[in-house]
This record gives sequence, structure tokens and C-alpha cells, in this order.
Amino acid sequence: MTRGRRREHYQWNMDIIGVPGIEAEAELLSALVTFFKNMGITSNDVGIKISNRKVLQAVLSRHNVPDDSFAAVCVIVDKIEKLPQDEIKKELSMLGVTIEAVNGILDALSIRSLDELEDLIGPESGAVADLKQLLNLANAYGYDDWVHFDASIVRGLAYYTGTVFEGFDKEGRLRAICGGGRYDRLLATFGGPETPACGFGFGDAVILELLKEKGIIPSLRLEADYIVIALEDHLRQPASTIAARLRSTGHVVDLVLENKRLKWAFRQAERLNAKRMILVGSSEWEKGTVRVKDLSSGDECDVTLDDLVTQQNYKVS
Amino acid sequence: MTRGRRREHYQWNMDIIGVPGIEAEAELLSALVTFFKNMGITSNDVGIKISNRKVLQAVLSRHNVPDDSFAAVCVIVDKIEKLPQDEIKKELSMLGVTIEAVNGILDALSIRSLDELEDLIGPESGAVADLKQLLNLANAYGYDDWVHFDASIVRGLAYYTGTVFEGFDKEGRLRAICGGGRYDRLLATFGGPETPACGFGFGDAVILELLKEKGIIPSLRLEADYIVIALEDHLRQPASTIAARLRSTGHVVDLVLENKRLKWAFRQAERLNAKRMILVGSSEWEKGTVRVKDLSSGDECDVTLDDLVTQQNYKVS
Repeated sequence: MTRGRRREHYQWNMDIIGVPGIEAEAELLSALVTFFKNMGITSNDVGIKISNRKVLQAVLSRHNVPDDSFAAVCVIVDKIEKLPQDEIKKELSMLGVTIEAVNGILDALSIRSLDELEDLIGPESGAVADLKQLLNLANAYGYDDWVHFDASIVRGLAYYTGTVFEGFDKEGRLRAICGGGRYDRLLATFGGPETPACGFGFGDAVILELLKEKGIIPSLRLEADYIVIALEDHLRQPASTIAARLRSTGHVVDLVLENKRLKWAFRQAERLNAKRMILVGSSEWEKGTVRVKDLSSGDECDVTLDDLVTQQNYKVS
Repeated sequence: MTRGRRREHYQWNMDIIGVPGIEAEAELLSALVTFFKNMGITSNDVGIKISNRKVLQAVLSRHNVPDDSFAAVCVIVDKIEKLPQDEIKKELSMLGVTIEAVNGILDALSIRSLDELEDLIGPESGAVADLKQLLNLANAYGYDDWVHFDASIVRGLAYYTGTVFEGFDKEGRLRAICGGGRYDRLLATFGGPETPACGFGFGDAVILELLKEKGIIPSLRLEADYIVIALEDHLRQPASTIAARLRSTGHVVDLVLENKRLKWAFRQAERLNAKRMILVGSSEWEKGTVRVKDLSSGDECDVTLDDLVTQQNYKVS
């Protein structure tokens, strides 16, 4: 339990199943960027770091670290921004990784340019080609200003096999906003043939912190068309009828259910941003009418229930 | 686990906190009926049985059953439609309720008319007055054809204190659709002053069975404006650009992410009910255009990307 990390949270996930090409990752990142934009977030606020598990695989292989240590190394390396480097080194050594290999891994993870990466690991692993293709697609989609290659991104889950990515706030004050990647071997472990897949998870906790910080939490304003109040207890039934008929024609109606003063009703109307108040009083009701009061102008008039529902033969503005 | 009862389910709840009068129950029932109507369900399909915990309280008191047996009796009596009457009698006797009282309780629970109820328990408990008021309000709201007094409804939860109600299918083939009631003492047990409250819970399992049976499950039809396909691999980037620009103007766009035949794309377009297909081919793209095909008429023409996005200077219908 820290900032942006709760005991329980909601999360949306988006996955593309069955597409082996990097086009799938590009489509997922496009959805992420669209979401951020719709929330009022810009690429000055948030970026998406991308890398590829094949980077670390190539580095490990150059240092003769056995394949079956790969998943364990990923889990340790994912903590690189949270733990001191000495701690990372210690944990890697405990896996039997040599000092030389540890230094090689840490050097590789500090790379932020594809040219530098290409110089280090060459073209064999496919990592550089995958990353270039993804950045080219990002450019074609028009969200290249959101994505950055960053070799330190490996994600903590053992099952990723290719592209990995992580949304982050550019001020560096929050935990990862979202994360995902390609997991081409995971689905087959539940049975069936190997099925390429990639996806991301996006929790509600960190984005909420970010939206609060930027002051752009969407305001979910209550908006009632009418507030209906019976001015005497015995008029509660006609008040119910009026509320029901107005609702049946699609209006949002708050019906005062208790014996409340008018003053309370006006405050309630303000809370609900109600447009009009319907006052059901004895003398009007005896004549078959109710009073309609426009709450912005204060304008009011008496109308029959039918005219009220059909919005005819009267005018308040 | 039976029909309409799953290990896990979603449920919506609606509660009115702080209103002591029956007007609150009337408003809740109005919301329930509105929901049913919006789903295409009529009062021929579904009814809402209402009763009041004060009915059983009055009956127990007439038979000198101690107050502290009340909650336990309610839990047993709630099973009246699921268990044989002998089993109900046996369980009540085990609580120390006399045979005479058991018979009195079972007789009272068979009552379906307010007049008969009034004859049996009189006006002291307030049960008859509460039920009459609720039925009068149901009439004022206009949903009186949906509600029925039924003394056998007690609900299985110990905390109800007044009105109780239950939605049921009129063919009697399903479990209760929803249920609720007034629980004026529950909130104070978590601390604070006594706070009147009533509400209902409405699970997704039984209503889904009912909607299936009536053939009125809402069809959540996919509707895409465009399906975009690159006819050659090297045109995937322009295809991404086109999809991104169309989406940015609010269109729903499916982008084919793989090397697929046109035949597949047409089938995919049908699955998505797509209106138009954008074909990105070499010869057109060299001229800066793409082919737009209207999928209902078969009409097609070549347009520039700008004209496509602004929907100007071309016409397919």
C-alpha cells in the first residue's frame, strides 16, 4: 500500500490474440495514447517506454548466462528503478550470474538509443528490427512523440516474450501508469496450440493520482430537469404521479420524499443543478394545476399536468 | 449452483438512506418497474410481491412467541416455497414455537388480501397501514399492476424491519429476480445514530435467464464505420496513418493487422457490420489516393487521404 497502489483496484485490459506481427503492439499503443488524450493528458505529461525481452536475452546469451535463468533475471532487473544498484547486483550474483555478466547486463539496460543497442547486440536477436518497426508504426499512427526506447524496461512478469512497454508520468513522481507486452507462449500453457498474443493492463489507482495532480478529474455533474415537491403531506400521491409522468417522457426528476421546507428544496435543487421546480400545493391542485418555477430566471406559472408533460400551452424561461 | 444461481455474480443495488416514510419504498419500486419496462418486460411477465415484517411480528406476538426468536423464524419462513410444509413445521418447532403457533404462522402467511390481514392482526402493528400506503403510492406512480400483497414474503435476511419485497416471474419457473426492503436498524450497528434506510439488490443471473426465455436479450451489435486493409505488406504504415486519422475524427475503424486475403476482409467487414472498406493498394497510393468501397452498394472511388478524412470531394453511396 503506497501512493497509487491499493489493496484492491479496478483495471482495464486490452489484448490482441492471434496476431504475431508488431502491428498488434502498435495498435495497442495507439489505444493507450487515445485514452490519455481523451483524459486531457499530453505527451508532456506522460510517455510510454518501450523495449523488447529479446534485448536482455541477447545480452545474457553474450555472457553465457543459461536460458533457464532468463525469467528470474527479468524479475530482478524489473526492480532496477526501485532498488539500489548494489542490491540488484547482489540478487543477480545469487542466481549464479558472474560479476562480469552483471556489469554487462546493467550497462546494456542503460542504453536509450537504438543505434547504440544495434552496436552492442547486432541484428541476430531481432530485437532491434522489432523496435525499429514499432517506432516506424508509431510515427505512421502519429504518436511517436509519446514513445521512447528504454532498455531498462523489462516488466516483472515472467511470461513476456517480445515487446514490453510501460506508461509513466514525465515528472517521475508516480509508479508505472500501465504496462504490457507480447506473451506468445502463455496461452499454450493453458492447453492448445501456441497462439501469439499481446496486451496491457491499466489500473485505476495511478491514473487517478495523475488526473488529480493535473486538476483534470472529469466532473460528473448531477443534472436534474425537475425537482418535485409536495407542499402538504396529503399531496404526496399527486407529486408521485407528476414525477412518474415526467420521467416516462425521459426527464430526470428528483422527487422530495419527505416533509421538507421550501428552503431545503431550493438547496437540494442547487445540489442537483435542477432546471425547474414543480410545487404541488392545495389551492393549485384543487384547480388541477401545479406551479412550475424556472430556477435560473425565477419565472413561474401554473399549468395542468397534461400541459406540463407535453410541454405545451405554457412558458417559463 | 442451480439455474439463475452462480458461484459469482454481478448485482446492482439501490438504496435510499435517511427517509423513514413509505415514500422511499415507493420510489425504489418505481425504479425497479422502470428497469423492467426498459428491458421490454411487462407486468404479464413479472410481478413484485410485497409484505411487511410487521405482519409476522404481529402474528408471533399473538401467539406469545418471544421477540428474540423473530429473526430465526424469518429465516425459516423465507424457505416456505422451497421446502415441504412439514419441514418448515419441524424447523419452527425446534425453535420452541408451539404447534398451535406454527399453524397460526402458516395460516397468516397464506393471506393474499389486505382486508383479510386487517381482520387477523388489526391496526396496532402498523403493517396494514404501511401496506395500504405503499399500494396507494404504487397507484399514484402508475405501477399498481406490478405489485401484489403476499404475506408469505419475509426475505431471508435478519436485518429487515418493515416493508419487504421480491420480484418474481409470473410463470413461476425461476428464483426471485430481485429483493429488498426496509432496514431501519442495520446502519446503527456499524456505529452512529439510528438511520432509516431501505434498498434492494438485483443480480444479473435470474434476469438473464428471463430475458433469454423471452427472447429479448439486447443485441449489442458491433458497428464499424470503416475497415482498413493494406493490400501489400509495405503499405501497412499508410494504412495505420489512415486508421489513426479516421479515428481521430470520431469514426470506428477496424484496421487489418495481418497479411489477409480480400475475401477474409469482406467476411470481417460483415462480422463488424462495417459500412465502408478502405483498400490501400500500391498503384493508388503512388498517386496519393486510396480506394473507398461502400459495402452496401458496392460503389467505389479513389480519394486522397485529406478528402477521406474531411469527407469532401467524393461520393460513394
